[in-house]
Amino acid sequence: MSKYDIIVLGSGPGGYVAAIRASQLGFKTAVIEKESLGGVCLNWGCIPTKALLKSAQVFEYLKHAEDYGLSVKEYDKDFTAVVKRSRGVAEGMSNGVKFLMKKNKIDVIEGFGTLKTGKKVEVDGKDYSADHIIIATGARSRELPSLPQDGKKVIGYRQAMSLEKQPKKMIVVGSGAIGVEFAYFYNSIGTEVTIVEYLPSIVPVEDEDVSKQLERSFKKSGIKIMTSAEVTSVDTSGKGVKATVKTKKGEEILEADLVLSAVGIKSNIENIGLEDVGIAVDRDKILVNDYYQTNIPGYYAIGDVTPGQALAHVASAEGILCVEKIAGQHVEAIDYGNVPGCTYCTPEIASVGLTEKQAKEQGLDIKVGKFPFSASGKASAGGNKEGFVKVIFDAKYGEWLGCHMIGAGVTDMIAEAVLGRKLETTGHEVLKAIHPHPTMSEAVMEAVADAYDEVIHL
Amino acid sequence: MSKYDIIVLGSGPGGYVAAIRASQLGFKTAVIEKESLGGVCLNWGCIPTKALLKSAQVFEYLKHAEDYGLSVKEYDKDFTAVVKRSRGVAEGMSNGVKFLMKKNKIDVIEGFGTLKTGKKVEVDGKDYSADHIIIATGARSRELPSLPQDGKKVIGYRQAMSLEKQPKKMIVVGSGAIGVEFAYFYNSIGTEVTIVEYLPSIVPVEDEDVSKQLERSFKKSGIKIMTSAEVTSVDTSGKGVKATVKTKKGEEILEADLVLSAVGIKSNIENIGLEDVGIAVDRDKILVNDYYQTNIPGYYAIGDVTPGQALAHVASAEGILCVEKIAGQHVEAIDYGNVPGCTYCTPEIASVGLTEKQAKEQGLDIKVGKFPFSASGKASAGGNKEGFVKVIFDAKYGEWLGCHMIGAGVTDMIAEAVLGRKLETTGHEVLKAIHPHPTMSEAVMEAVADAYDEVIHL
Repeated sequence: MSKYDIIVLGSGPGGYVAAIRASQLGFKTAVIEKESLGGVCLNWGCIPTKALLKSAQVFEYLKHAEDYGLSVKEYDKDFTAVVKRSRGVAEGMSNGVKFLMKKNKIDVIEGFGTLKTGKKVEVDGKDYSADHIIIATGARSRELPSLPQDGKKVIGYRQAMSLEKQPKKMIVVGSGAIGVEFAYFYNSIGTEVTIVEYLPSIVPVEDEDVSKQLERSFKKSGIKIMTSAEVTSVDTSGKGVKATVKTKKGEEILEADLVLSAVGIKSNIENIGLEDVGIAVDRDKILVNDYYQTNIPGYYAIGDVTPGQALAHVASAEGILCVEKIAGQHVEAIDYGNVPGCTYCTPEIASVGLTEKQAKEQGLDIKVGKFPFSASGKASAGGNKEGFVKVIFDAKYGEWLGCHMIGAGVTDMIAEAVLGRKLETTGHEVLKAIHPHPTMSEAVMEAVADAYDEVIHL
Repeated sequence: MSKYDIIVLGSGPGGYVAAIRASQLGFKTAVIEKESLGGVCLNWGCIPTKALLKSAQVFEYLKHAEDYGLSVKEYDKDFTAVVKRSRGVAEGMSNGVKFLMKKNKIDVIEGFGTLKTGKKVEVDGKDYSADHIIIATGARSRELPSLPQDGKKVIGYRQAMSLEKQPKKMIVVGSGAIGVEFAYFYNSIGTEVTIVEYLPSIVPVEDEDVSKQLERSFKKSGIKIMTSAEVTSVDTSGKGVKATVKTKKGEEILEADLVLSAVGIKSNIENIGLEDVGIAVDRDKILVNDYYQTNIPGYYAIGDVTPGQALAHVASAEGILCVEKIAGQHVEAIDYGNVPGCTYCTPEIASVGLTEKQAKEQGLDIKVGKFPFSASGKASAGGNKEGFVKVIFDAKYGEWLGCHMIGAGVTDMIAEAVLGRKLETTGHEVLKAIHPHPTMSEAVMEAVADAYDEVIHL
């Protein structure tokens, strides 16, 4: 029986990152993967979708070349080539993880691992033991009972990024990050898209102003949006699909080629031996403490199978912290209130901390500042006047409670807010940190200035 | 005689921003402008160049559409339309400043102002007096004795952004931000460009690794680069120009349609009455203290006419601080070591703090980390694998000494380093600030991790 210091079950951004950190800290490490190195994120999530979205973004430039003093007579997209590029990028990244595993001398065990008592994992009838076993099996697309996925006419994100043919008409159920990213992508390349969202606004976890802005932008770009609406059933018997949508006004039948179900995720906690080992779960999440230790010594869990935000960067951070704690390092628990979230449609969305509504619900006395990109020189020069930066500060203590951005490139701008909040900055310090001109990032400084009635360009 | 609390001489990003802040603080304010509101930055600098560069960037997408699964059969640029768009953006911004002046009840006095003793400024024979006079007259393109600008065949940035016809061949003398931005723009739209730089590397104020990367990228895109080279004379007698370039290997004659001289700037301190009032200058800079007070009480100077970096965001910050000090607010002197610099060619450059060479010259014991975008998932998905983030930390105290970036979108990413440095962050805190995945900003976190031998994706 092979013996390791640390075995990681699953090689997504939680698992493979934990394995690399473990190797750096001197642990003999193995990672078990049933499918492709890198997990959903690299192969069917973050990375390939960003590749698709980039093609859509460039396609928008072709459509609007005249706005920039350029002319394009004949242009088209090759759906197969767009998907192929995306698959190629994913493959490249997965190979990159393979290289990193080799470089860090991490054994990659291919197959489906099942946890066993006595700190063992069985793969294809063979047992592997370790002092520490980290469960990082991730999650998959959640299925609604009213919307069972057949992979053809009712699909999840996985099929949505590898269709053979571009659909003419598409219904997207759910408007979280995954839903609106695909809605943007397909609409942009010419598919007729309708979003059906159960809650009263799209991207419902975001600040209300962000939701409103995205709704305006999406509607302008031709996406149909139905909020406070629910797909109660789908008839797939005909050529396409007929979805029954229940709204406040009554029922409506939508016809389309297919339905994308993007209503969240479901943890992969089945059939991995949790029950045999006696690892405690609550609904579909494995219970862990601040160091990702489960109730059974020697077994840990990180990433989407645990209660924190189901995001790649959270999984990676948890994996690193988990391993550093095993190594006896002094570690500080992750502040889940300071985890940024990003959505990569156009306009992009990035946010961290409390929304205005959440802050008010907590009874906080707040100062709110907002700066629209329409007042930004760089945004004008770049043709990116849509969107804004909104900041929320505690009026009494000056704490930066939340930062919400929608606009071009904001997913690369939110790190400033994350670091600033981590370092317990005040608004005044952000104001006096000289932001370069002309940049979109000036909008952060100006939004903060607006919160303190010192905004210059409004 | 009109009497104000504050008169600002010049309405560039130093002057108009100072005027707005003054108005916010309750001062009766006027601004004097001889040409267009917004000064060089808005009308002939930061903003219109970014508009040109955006057209070039979109043109690159047309050229490389196939890389994204798209096809373009016939495409072209309309040089006149590209320039027209840029002029339109500048005009829009200048009108924006006009609106801001009105909204803030700031009087705009059109004409050339001359300082007089007794805290007065004369414009077109009329005197205006104020308790505080802020000189913000900015700068213009510097002329080399060997390269006198005739505005036709030997031009400055102003002509370079408003040519009637696209040159076929162009020599760019100087490779600071202005030089390389125009070199990139013109090369990108099909002009044959040669850069002549006196120093051994292009963008010589940047970290050496950045200079090397840009040289590689530019050469790959077809720009010719001559370093340690000097244009000793230009013959403009023929149809185009013949420039004599002295290099280590000897002399070479370059032929082109025109020469762009981009060898820095010269302060506008002539004929504004400095001598009459007795305001002290050193070479072409007005001497000021930490609060931008000159040697003569009641007279202040900010922006390019003072010794700090000649950058729009510096001028704005100085203007705000100057006025806040006049208002009796507690202000902290600007830390010129924490001013970011940005260059907007492709790849973009952004940096703040010490270069590796500077840190070593100061005898500091340093930790250097570097993360190439080729290892970034977002960069792969976006087709932006060129470039890197490089960080420099003090080995003993953990101070973040410098951050140097080259790549797509980095000008919007440097604010994180500026704020982090202002808040005296350590590398460990940057590492533990969760950067969203997948973003280019993760490269900052990874570069810091590399400095501390904890990098994951290398």
